[in-house]
Amino acid sequence: MHVYLNGEFLPLEQARISVEDRGFLFGDGVYEVTRALPSGLFAEAAHWHRLQRGIEELKLQTPEGFSRELVKNLSLELLEANGLTGRQATVYLQLTRGAAPRNHAFPPAGTPPTLYLSASPFQVPWTQRREGVSTMTLPDLRWARCDLKTVNLLPNILAKQQAREAGVFEALLVRDGVITEGASTSAFFVMDGALHTHPKGPHILPGVTQDIVISLAQGLGMTVHERPVRLDERDRFQEVFLAGTTTDVQPVIAVNGAKVGEGKPGPLTMALQRALYERMGMEPPP
Amino acid sequence: MHVYLNGEFLPLEQARISVEDRGFLFGDGVYEVTRALPSGLFAEAAHWHRLQRGIEELKLQTPEGFSRELVKNLSLELLEANGLTGRQATVYLQLTRGAAPRNHAFPPAGTPPTLYLSASPFQVPWTQRREGVSTMTLPDLRWARCDLKTVNLLPNILAKQQAREAGVFEALLVRDGVITEGASTSAFFVMDGALHTHPKGPHILPGVTQDIVISLAQGLGMTVHERPVRLDERDRFQEVFLAGTTTDVQPVIAVNGAKVGEGKPGPLTMALQRALYERMGMEPPP
Repeated sequence: MHVYLNGEFLPLEQARISVEDRGFLFGDGVYEVTRALPSGLFAEAAHWHRLQRGIEELKLQTPEGFSRELVKNLSLELLEANGLTGRQATVYLQLTRGAAPRNHAFPPAGTPPTLYLSASPFQVPWTQRREGVSTMTLPDLRWARCDLKTVNLLPNILAKQQAREAGVFEALLVRDGVITEGASTSAFFVMDGALHTHPKGPHILPGVTQDIVISLAQGLGMTVHERPVRLDERDRFQEVFLAGTTTDVQPVIAVNGAKVGEGKPGPLTMALQRALYERMGMEPPP
Repeated sequence: MHVYLNGEFLPLEQARISVEDRGFLFGDGVYEVTRALPSGLFAEAAHWHRLQRGIEELKLQTPEGFSRELVKNLSLELLEANGLTGRQATVYLQLTRGAAPRNHAFPPAGTPPTLYLSASPFQVPWTQRREGVSTMTLPDLRWARCDLKTVNLLPNILAKQQAREAGVFEALLVRDGVITEGASTSAFFVMDGALHTHPKGPHILPGVTQDIVISLAQGLGMTVHERPVRLDERDRFQEVFLAGTTTDVQPVIAVNGAKVGEGKPGPLTMALQRALYERMGMEPPP
């Protein structure tokens, strides 16, 4: 496997960073995961804009020549170098504030940032997409800037691990009684025939797939409410699904051990899943 | 400068970690900073116990042979290797969940953790300790497990940087109207002649120096209240000080541009500073 690190393509084993990298010492950086399809990078513009916003909000420096075009080209070269062109894959990108003697405040101007990209093959878990998954709810322990896609991911890790240990696919995070989103996914709820998902703001990551699903739903004539959904509305959930770059539209058939609706993927969910795959130029297996 | 990384002492420039280290990808690790004095490591037991608690709470694996004795010996060897024995210094230790293909949930059992230690010279800024520093208040954006000393430090970094840009020494963090602590220090307030500091709990880091100061204060016959201090009690602050491993007892003479008391270090603060330096076997310059 070849990765990109600070200007070089090199074997993963040789891609090493300083112990003083602020990514390692502080989690001082941002990341993106972009889906690569046989047709090319999916929603590349949206990922780029979210990355740009994170860079601006955190006042990260970028390497010389850093641009949307550069990131796109590096991603495509990396896919090529790993034999992934024309296949299903993901591209991971991480930018940190670089290596400098440890000090909380920003390092001296001119400290070179660290830019890392890798590409991995991806397989859609079709059975799971068709049959649905179970979830559990957990307290949302995250900070007050969940709108930034940073590598400060410990609360997400702990939630994901608890979900795995409970034998479920995802943890739905609950802050002050509101289901904000999953540990690494956006969450959607069907109530009274309409779609509900958490509004943009500091308590959720603005999901690239979330936005695509909202627009697909509107295109299909569904009503979409961007509003906080409370866990105590649970009895009204007719359908629940997750959305994400590697989650697509993933039906949820149980929350905390109790069935959602009939305990099988609902019609709005599956219509949106079909619409998303159509948008991606993909066809589910027969 | 020589550092320790996964079993080896080596020059800092050669101390490199994998781009797949979970410290780098997720901030999935804990750390400690311990003060080294001419007489040896200060409060070594307290730092070790806090580290142990973090390891247990985050279910981190430790390298083979990991023990209090090992950490102590590595620290002393590192001080020696850097010509810091018998001098003022700090020892930094970081333990992460190691390198593994990126996946939120924990990596496979047996993934070797990453253990990194470094030692740096330290100089007490005596003028600052004597004359006091200014502070500002900022919203406490951190997560709900501030009691764990993890490398998810982005909120602390952002607060520290804002303090620096405002020309003050520290940011006092305010959550729901309560001053929890500084971005990298514990906070103490003198009101009605008694000492007040935030009680242990999920919203503050249990400070090693904080505990020492509490016990020194009690030894000096002061009344200590471990209770949340609200920012709206500001008018009652007679003295304010910060405490920390590299902050010792640091008088605060201003908050948000307004003087604390007479705008100079107060008597209880300076008595505790003297007591701490006595405990450390240090004498302030005449």
